[in-house]
Amino acid sequence: MIRHIKVRTDGPGMYEITRAVQEALASTDLDEGLCTLMIQHTSASLVVQENADPSARRDLESWMDRHVPEGDPHFTHTTEGPDDMPSHIKAALTATTLSIPFESRRLTLGTWQGIFLWEHRQRGSVRRCVVHVGG
Amino acid sequence: MIRHIKVRTDGPGMYEITRAVQEALASTDLDEGLCTLMIQHTSASLVVQENADPSARRDLESWMDRHVPEGDPHFTHTTEGPDDMPSHIKAALTATTLSIPFESRRLTLGTWQGIFLWEHRQRGSVRRCVVHVGG
Amino acid sequence: MIRHIKVRTDGPGMYEITRAVQEALASTDLDEGLCTLMIQHTSASLVVQENADPSARRDLESWMDRHVPEGDPHFTHTTEGPDDMPSHIKAALTATTLSIPFESRRLTLGTWQGIFLWEHRQRGSVRRCVVHVGG
Repeated sequence: MIRHIKVRTDGPGMYEITRAVQEALASTDLDEGLCTLMIQHTSASLVVQENADPSARRDLESWMDRHVPEGDPHFTHTTEGPDDMPSHIKAALTATTLSIPFESRRLTLGTWQGIFLWEHRQRGSVRRCVVHVGG
Repeated sequence: MIRHIKVRTDGPGMYEITRAVQEALASTDLDEGLCTLMIQHTSASLVVQENADPSARRDLESWMDRHVPEGDPHFTHTTEGPDDMPSHIKAALTATTLSIPFESRRLTLGTWQGIFLWEHRQRGSVRRCVVHVGG
Repeated sequence: MIRHIKVRTDGPGMYEITRAVQEALASTDLDEGLCTLMIQHTSASLVVQENADPSARRDLESWMDRHVPEGDPHFTHTTEGPDDMPSHIKAALTATTLSIPFESRRLTLGTWQGIFLWEHRQRGSVRRCVVHVGG
């Protein structure tokens, strides 16, 4: 079964979508199986990260910004703005698809794990994900 | 159902395989489900990237080459050539497996998304991928 | 079908779990399908790497340690120790989930591919993975 999720973002950062994925899963009648998430963009991505202390996510964003900086003079793909090319690189370094098993209708995430959509562009957008739920 | 894809490469770079994956999918009789792709190598990898402007892919390759350079004096795994160890690192930083839902017999890729096999070695090769198609 | 794997680690490094995953697969009665592995932690991760020469894995670890060093003065998430924040970043750059097809009850890994659990923390731990096996 396939479900579609839309996530509104208002700038760079990680947006937790664990609940939205869990709800997509709950809308099916399956007790156990595999839930796969795919983001339909190349300037935003997916990541499983700590859901407790937000400083971990800020440090991760900051590390990425230092290593894939806007305005890198090597970039030639600049017509869509200085934040576009870093977005593609950050997306390539993280995940476009994630597959998470579920049992008793619950994703088998670890205690401290959350699923995040990582917006890499400066401006807000509506980001689309596809969820596949199989037995 | 399982299909096998071979991709001939003639040096480093991203080779679009979206059509080959779509054809493997079309060779099954499933309308909806999940299509999983796995590359059987550790010196080439998979990535979903922009399929429109090739400058985005060139900038991504160039960023990777600057951050994982051939001839890094720290490398000790050099018997297979100076491009071997960077290849393994680049593969670890990108994807070995990708799982993409499909509906109405079409991969649910976003408008600007293509699936690419990223060859990291200098010499050409025949790269093998396994495709699993499930309901 | 879902199986659970525990892996004891005694410090940073890659621990091969190919056999454990293959055994989880063999405990089901499926001949062909998809085997998905998920790690339930954000300070350890999964990677498919060369299973032959261990120098390749050492160089990969060393590259990661140089690019995501402990004690980076930019880090603010430091209450759990200097190795905690690098662990989250290394996990984000590698994989939390992997999906590998199987045929004739064998994972379709390439000749030189092994599945590794990558422990990023300094102290040992028991790491948990969930395995989903589907047709």
